[in-house]
Amino acid sequence: MTRITPVILCGGSGTRLWPRSRASKPKPFLPLVGEETLFEQALLRCREAAHFDPAVVVTGQAHLAHVEAQLCGLPGARVIVEPAAKNTAAAIALAALRLPEDEIMLVCPSDHHIADCEAFGAAARSAAALAAEGWLVSFGIEAKSPETGFGYLRRGDGVGGANGELGGFKVAQFIEKPDLARAEQFLAEGGYAWNGGIFAFRVGTFLDELREHRPRLAEAVARAVAGGREDGHRFHPDPAAFAEVESESVDYAVMENTARAAMVPADMGWSDIGNWQALHAARPRDGAGNAVSGKAELVDCRNVLVESDGPRVSVIGLEDVIGMVDGDEILVTSAAGAQKVGKLGGAVNQ
Amino acid sequence: MTRITPVILCGGSGTRLWPRSRASKPKPFLPLVGEETLFEQALLRCREAAHFDPAVVVTGQAHLAHVEAQLCGLPGARVIVEPAAKNTAAAIALAALRLPEDEIMLVCPSDHHIADCEAFGAAARSAAALAAEGWLVSFGIEAKSPETGFGYLRRGDGVGGANGELGGFKVAQFIEKPDLARAEQFLAEGGYAWNGGIFAFRVGTFLDELREHRPRLAEAVARAVAGGREDGHRFHPDPAAFAEVESESVDYAVMENTARAAMVPADMGWSDIGNWQALHAARPRDGAGNAVSGKAELVDCRNVLVESDGPRVSVIGLEDVIGMVDGDEILVTSAAGAQKVGKLGGAVNQ
Repeated sequence: MTRITPVILCGGSGTRLWPRSRASKPKPFLPLVGEETLFEQALLRCREAAHFDPAVVVTGQAHLAHVEAQLCGLPGARVIVEPAAKNTAAAIALAALRLPEDEIMLVCPSDHHIADCEAFGAAARSAAALAAEGWLVSFGIEAKSPETGFGYLRRGDGVGGANGELGGFKVAQFIEKPDLARAEQFLAEGGYAWNGGIFAFRVGTFLDELREHRPRLAEAVARAVAGGREDGHRFHPDPAAFAEVESESVDYAVMENTARAAMVPADMGWSDIGNWQALHAARPRDGAGNAVSGKAELVDCRNVLVESDGPRVSVIGLEDVIGMVDGDEILVTSAAGAQKVGKLGGAVNQ
Repeated sequence: MTRITPVILCGGSGTRLWPRSRASKPKPFLPLVGEETLFEQALLRCREAAHFDPAVVVTGQAHLAHVEAQLCGLPGARVIVEPAAKNTAAAIALAALRLPEDEIMLVCPSDHHIADCEAFGAAARSAAALAAEGWLVSFGIEAKSPETGFGYLRRGDGVGGANGELGGFKVAQFIEKPDLARAEQFLAEGGYAWNGGIFAFRVGTFLDELREHRPRLAEAVARAVAGGREDGHRFHPDPAAFAEVESESVDYAVMENTARAAMVPADMGWSDIGNWQALHAARPRDGAGNAVSGKAELVDCRNVLVESDGPRVSVIGLEDVIGMVDGDEILVTSAAGAQKVGKLGGAVNQ
């Protein structure tokens, strides 16, 4: 059976979920949907698929304490501590260079939410089987609405298994974030999926493609790993070598260049929880669309999300509004305005 | 020259301005518009009209500490401490029975805002002169909008002075809070004014009318005063006698029954600050109609009022919304919903 190692990428800070997400306690480490944090859910999702090997977490020094607190001594889990943030191509390369050539990496962001873990598991197994055949596999997330904040994958010919029984497709085209008209066209046409940043790669195949398309990047990461040091379950790449690594996404560096890009369709209640509106949509809500956490009283409200870590919040007569109370900061935004949270003075100057 | 004693009524608690107004610090004692509290402004307005005598404040035990703190040793000011709240007829009667028969009482609520103090002074002098002629005078506040929360006065024939030079009118009709259609009709027709609860009475005339129309009430208040005790500038009516006093407004008890009801028109930027929306309207606002007090950042907002006594409040994309932060309570309401604030759990169970 294919062996799969989850590679959990634990980077960004999520300023668009300020003030709950802050530099000192970023988005992946918050229980935004349900009891567990997004990072814990990412680990649990993989652990529940019984044949997954222990996870490798790639993170930075700033997040290390949170990662280790929330790993809770998961048996066999390892942590790679990036000396600097260098985007996803380098992060995945670090993990690849610490794993056997034949291992399948299942690369997962740590700040997304997936409601349907069974669907995730099924897609992961398909993707791993395709990866074992030498495909570089993206999860193609069922596009439910004309989102302009995601890249899209266009589905090509079927691939995988002798008779296509693995359910994969070639990626015919990678499309950057479209405008609304184009996104609506994608939805109407069908055959397009969101690129959610979840990948399955055979380690050796990934490294071969990286060396082919980004030789300098591959070489610099290899030197950082060669010069790195182990510290129990932690691995510290060499900072000087890693400083020379180009900062590039795996999509640009590898996926858009390889001839072996494939995708598996995944309809699994996915959300990147990219802003407060997205979080509201991922939360259980009452008949009026309201969701409350902490002390609150809502009167004549529809589609209102209210969270308070202390004071009682009383809300009257609002629709499509989000209210957050977090210590010394209070945010009240229209759902449409949620996109601008990251640009607020409080979010910028944390 | 007519001698005028301001009689400041300091009763209600203002639950519709919760959470800023609370049982422990009610509306009259808050600096809701400008630097002074509404109570202080009521005193100052009268003091600035140079020929007013020192004020008499009628209040209850619950408000006494606030009243005395904010009187700031105003020379000659006296306080009548009601043993129980018995509405305005009894409160005014208490003050009347402590003043000379020929004195003019200018009865003022302590929880309203008046932007134009000169116009107030002019109306007060007219009203006092009419009262000296034996009229019971209401301020008829220029109706600026079809409010359904106020009673209305319909203007009758001109009265006052040999040639009507005091600018008063008989009150042709007292109208209770109308519905919207009727209020709009009043505005369209003209000749209607809001009844703002400001009155001028000659003491002896008021007491005569009270005795005629509410003999039991007048008698019970007289016994409470006869059995009362002085304590420096304070006067405490007899609680047992006062307990028997009927609770009735001066409008019902006297104004709607007397044949000598008159009014003076008053266009003086009056607001009863009856709820958060009214307060917002009384505040200085920026070009987008926003008003902020305390730490706040507003983005894409119109007609938003934000006040915080501590945490920063960041607001995006809202219109006609009021946000209040007061210690352990936060209120966010649509302007239209401001009417319901007094019914919130927090406001009811303070």
